[in-house]
Amino acid sequence: MICKYSFGTPFETEAVVQALPESDQEPRFLTVRSRLPLCFSCRLGEEEAVYGLGESVRGMNKRGWIYENYALDQPHHHEDTRSLYSCHSFVIVSGPERVFGLFLDEPGRVIFDIGYACRTEMTITCVQNSCVLYEITGETEADIVQQYRRLIGRSYLPPKWAFGFIQSRWGYKDESDVRQVAQGYRDRQMALDGICMDIDYMERYKDFTVDPARFPDLAALAGEMKAQGVHLIPIIDAGVKIEAGYDVYEEGCEKGYFCTDLEGKPFVAAVWPGLVHFPDVLNPEARRWFGQKYKVLTELGIDGFWNDMNEPAIFYSKTGLDEAFKSIREMEGENLGLHEYFRMGDIIRNMSNSPQDYASFYHSLSDGSRVCHDRVHSLFGYNMTRAAGEELDTLRPGERTLLFSRSSYPGMHRYGGIWQGDNKSWWSHLALNVKMMPSVDMMGFLYQGADLGGFGCDTTEDLLLRWIAFGIFTPLMRNHSAMGTRQQELYSYPMWETFRDLISIRYMLLPYLYSEFVKCLLDDRMLFRPLAFDYRTDKRAREIEDQLLLGEGLMLAPVTEQNRTWRYVYLPEEMKLIRMKKAGQWQEEILPAGDHRVEIRLDEVVFFIRPDKLVPYTLRPGLSVAETDFDQLSILHFVKNEGEYKLYDDDGLTRDLSGEDRITTIRLTADGTLTTSGSKTVRL
Amino acid sequence: MICKYSFGTPFETEAVVQALPESDQEPRFLTVRSRLPLCFSCRLGEEEAVYGLGESVRGMNKRGWIYENYALDQPHHHEDTRSLYSCHSFVIVSGPERVFGLFLDEPGRVIFDIGYACRTEMTITCVQNSCVLYEITGETEADIVQQYRRLIGRSYLPPKWAFGFIQSRWGYKDESDVRQVAQGYRDRQMALDGICMDIDYMERYKDFTVDPARFPDLAALAGEMKAQGVHLIPIIDAGVKIEAGYDVYEEGCEKGYFCTDLEGKPFVAAVWPGLVHFPDVLNPEARRWFGQKYKVLTELGIDGFWNDMNEPAIFYSKTGLDEAFKSIREMEGENLGLHEYFRMGDIIRNMSNSPQDYASFYHSLSDGSRVCHDRVHSLFGYNMTRAAGEELDTLRPGERTLLFSRSSYPGMHRYGGIWQGDNKSWWSHLALNVKMMPSVDMMGFLYQGADLGGFGCDTTEDLLLRWIAFGIFTPLMRNHSAMGTRQQELYSYPMWETFRDLISIRYMLLPYLYSEFVKCLLDDRMLFRPLAFDYRTDKRAREIEDQLLLGEGLMLAPVTEQNRTWRYVYLPEEMKLIRMKKAGQWQEEILPAGDHRVEIRLDEVVFFIRPDKLVPYTLRPGLSVAETDFDQLSILHFVKNEGEYKLYDDDGLTRDLSGEDRITTIRLTADGTLTTSGSKTVRL
Repeated sequence: MICKYSFGTPFETEAVVQALPESDQEPRFLTVRSRLPLCFSCRLGEEEAVYGLGESVRGMNKRGWIYENYALDQPHHHEDTRSLYSCHSFVIVSGPERVFGLFLDEPGRVIFDIGYACRTEMTITCVQNSCVLYEITGETEADIVQQYRRLIGRSYLPPKWAFGFIQSRWGYKDESDVRQVAQGYRDRQMALDGICMDIDYMERYKDFTVDPARFPDLAALAGEMKAQGVHLIPIIDAGVKIEAGYDVYEEGCEKGYFCTDLEGKPFVAAVWPGLVHFPDVLNPEARRWFGQKYKVLTELGIDGFWNDMNEPAIFYSKTGLDEAFKSIREMEGENLGLHEYFRMGDIIRNMSNSPQDYASFYHSLSDGSRVCHDRVHSLFGYNMTRAAGEELDTLRPGERTLLFSRSSYPGMHRYGGIWQGDNKSWWSHLALNVKMMPSVDMMGFLYQGADLGGFGCDTTEDLLLRWIAFGIFTPLMRNHSAMGTRQQELYSYPMWETFRDLISIRYMLLPYLYSEFVKCLLDDRMLFRPLAFDYRTDKRAREIEDQLLLGEGLMLAPVTEQNRTWRYVYLPEEMKLIRMKKAGQWQEEILPAGDHRVEIRLDEVVFFIRPDKLVPYTLRPGLSVAETDFDQLSILHFVKNEGEYKLYDDDGLTRDLSGEDRITTIRLTADGTLTTSGSKTVRL
Repeated sequence: MICKYSFGTPFETEAVVQALPESDQEPRFLTVRSRLPLCFSCRLGEEEAVYGLGESVRGMNKRGWIYENYALDQPHHHEDTRSLYSCHSFVIVSGPERVFGLFLDEPGRVIFDIGYACRTEMTITCVQNSCVLYEITGETEADIVQQYRRLIGRSYLPPKWAFGFIQSRWGYKDESDVRQVAQGYRDRQMALDGICMDIDYMERYKDFTVDPARFPDLAALAGEMKAQGVHLIPIIDAGVKIEAGYDVYEEGCEKGYFCTDLEGKPFVAAVWPGLVHFPDVLNPEARRWFGQKYKVLTELGIDGFWNDMNEPAIFYSKTGLDEAFKSIREMEGENLGLHEYFRMGDIIRNMSNSPQDYASFYHSLSDGSRVCHDRVHSLFGYNMTRAAGEELDTLRPGERTLLFSRSSYPGMHRYGGIWQGDNKSWWSHLALNVKMMPSVDMMGFLYQGADLGGFGCDTTEDLLLRWIAFGIFTPLMRNHSAMGTRQQELYSYPMWETFRDLISIRYMLLPYLYSEFVKCLLDDRMLFRPLAFDYRTDKRAREIEDQLLLGEGLMLAPVTEQNRTWRYVYLPEEMKLIRMKKAGQWQEEILPAGDHRVEIRLDEVVFFIRPDKLVPYTLRPGLSVAETDFDQLSILHFVKNEGEYKLYDDDGLTRDLSGEDRITTIRLTADGTLTTSGSKTVRL
């Protein structure tokens, strides 16, 4: 059951798709500590865990830190980071005596102190003194998640090819770089389904342009790549470059589709293109206009996009930069010293993503009113991606388009996926990737994954191996790295054959991964889950944060530490261990419930099958999703009594998911009898 | 055996105390890849581990990263950090087929690529094209460490009270703050042996001054504290403030005791006091002069010091700041934009600890020659602490003084200990603290420890609990935090009683901890060891990086993850688990060799006793070391056949460690027969 309570003057975010009545009671789980500022509190029992918050640092259990939901471009995130790119104020408090969910629909700054100031108390502060609070009660975490997801609507579905391996790097500067990447993989028979094009493909970083010198014929390049099974996925940034003669800029100005300053003039910020205006994506008309611009690229044969810098990140505002220089100039008259040195550092640091800048521009809403950006800050990425999502539906009617975003808010999950933001080539960020999977999934972002190998900093071959070994299970499987860091294309490492083999496992498992993805989407369930959610009464399982359940049949236990060829694994029940070096080549071992020490060498993937579960796989994995045979299947299985699996499949492109013919039911009994009903051929 | 090889023009660092002949062979383990630059290489077998490097990021096994020994003030250290405060170019390569040590005595920049560029190769580059290389062969890691330690001389011995708990914070601004801290502990019957005084006690951050307004009578305060068993431990920074009338500054200028610029004028840098000169501690005369200055404080009753900022850290040089402002001024004429924004950030970042600054000042050596600081950079902290160490011996004849430093180099371990540098209130830095213990210990720094609870960032109560539970075993046990962060004094938390109880365990174990410390010092052995060193042939033990051996009898397995009430522990052999909540209150359990899941709640310390080992403890732990009875003892023990322990004890102050009367031999047989020879009373 969901109870809705409104406080202050909530902003209509369109996060929610169900109209619920307002409760006339006081909230049941939260105590209103004050209205100004709006602050709630809740005692936490010693054994209660708090799950959720989507993209955020620390563990699956969020206890013991303070988090601030206010979208922030924060590539340097560590344990003490409070804000990241996305904002999802949904948590589940779960303990032996109670379980409930809290969703605060509030796009201004929301602060969750989850046992930071006081170990046994959670306080939630809405800095704008408003929010719509939903309290969700249910029997289990899964039940609460499902209710939440039905409240916010069905998740985005990407095309099937988006489940293939994608190579990305900030630094592919021209078409020859792109060709070289494709060839690097193809020459070595390494699977590849996409190449992301970072900001360098554009002409002077202008959205919806293609640099004519470096990419003279993008349509031809896209076609050439597609013939090899490789989709090009260009980036779109939030800021529109101010440049005379640039149509997007001029149209936006003319039609009043940009965010404005106090005086009503387009607000000026600086990002990659230099000075930019931000499209006013909270305004439906501007949103439609911006979304239609994607046509420039879809007409060239592009069928995938990533939306970036849409917190929106601001390097500086014009005012900010001028003031910074002015402050520094003023200091010069003085006797330069320690004070000036520290001040100068502060000035530079505070210039980026500054609260003052966010408080100094405005959105024009459809009712003619204006709202200060700061009030609704965390909605920007959502609405930029919504712009794309809504219009791509009309630009590519009936067909799915790959779309993922850096920033997000509840509701955006209906239009696109996310990547877990710019991370680093750190073992701790691999571990964070693992821990974030269920939290992000819980928010409805089924299509997600982290930058494999790490975006910033230099990776190492062993880190990349371990990260890929985990990444083969994440829906978005993208290797991405930043300019200036070590090359990260898998074929450039001595152990490239191992990388090739690890990736082949992804393609082998695609029938299961895709089927589970769509089934979770249709049922509003979680694809990645903490052990705590499925094994609720197992006290041991509740404290496991480095293992994951994936779909109905699999448990993962990735290695996330350097120089470790083994790890401990906790099995809440008897399971079958699969140790795989490449598609079609594995060993099996049945392990009893309990603690195990499991060897996992650098060239192996280890995962587990739950009892009476079937995991269909293809007998013919290809070098792309298109080349992969989804019809000739076999199954990994651990049948003690009887297992049944309902396999979902479709053409991977149409947006219509109905039709019974898409389901193949596979049954296997302990005596080895296999029966199949449906269109697939399944053999043991 | 140790073989010595010289390359280029080595600088005499005085790291080594043994005169060894030069080998006329080529190095046995390293291949000289080039002389200009001086670069060595060495293949690494798949199963070989590389231990050492003292203070550095990542694991006990250093494989898979690139490290640069060039002393750096780096409080923001992460996995990709290459340089930290201290520089120790000693490693042991250890695998199934060979074990050997390499020590490169070279104070310029030394780069260790340990399987970063290529997983199976180590390359070592000496940027100054010189070094003295020592190749050490032996049967075991322990043997190699012992030879290394004999090469570099016996480790520093602090007074016994320095093994007590020390409270520190940057921000105790006056004597009332200091009194309040002492009272905070004393009122709650929480043990305390020292309070560190950070830079605020000084008059305008001038070394060897005391602010007369805020600390009107430091001698009286020190006496008042000592009467409560609390020693005051002031900080000394590397830079001497430029201020007319300040005796240290004026004398230093007059006598030419400061580092000089190219033209021979004292070099000007800026640190906390503003503009400073650096004492030329590489010059024996200047060193003596600087060391004698500690007298100002010893005469007030001070018997402990910490030397800080001695990489030496430079916020900026006068030239650097002027140039920064000039560059920014020049940009102003231009159309301010992206380029200027990025450039301004670079200017600020590059101003601190800049290689140009380090290359622009000089030391005057005793032979009248000058050497550029850059050539010998990593020697500064060593020689600043040597200045103090040598002169404190004359200022406090026969008596030990507590002395620990931030920066260090081999050889400094003869004069003082180190703390593991400014860290953060991160769980990952607690884990790093654990991993660094044996590496730092290996270098001869027996007296060491990290800032418990974390220096920078805000701690949480649970992190502090776990960190203290580990810190009770580290020789330097100091809670330290930075100005502006959350209060970190243990009495200020709701669970202060748990903190009190945890600390009581430290005092209970002091007889063992002190005895083991001194015995390791006398024998040039390691106090903290990876399991790999003691269980060489146990493949499992070789990959354990989150457990430690402490002295001959104990194994530690701290919890370093949030929201975890248990951990896995690997026992290479049968051991006795001790679960302790406070001094004198514990449970025991004998566990077989193998893997175990061990519950360790927030209010507990768990450790293990090895078979046939005795761990003496006091029956009367006090609220300070002075109050702790080292004569009335009992033993924790796990005797299967017979155990013998040689307990070392002394008055904790005299520097003379000889005398058979300091040893008590305790024997216990399996049937419970206890015999003691020596001065202590031991009962079961």
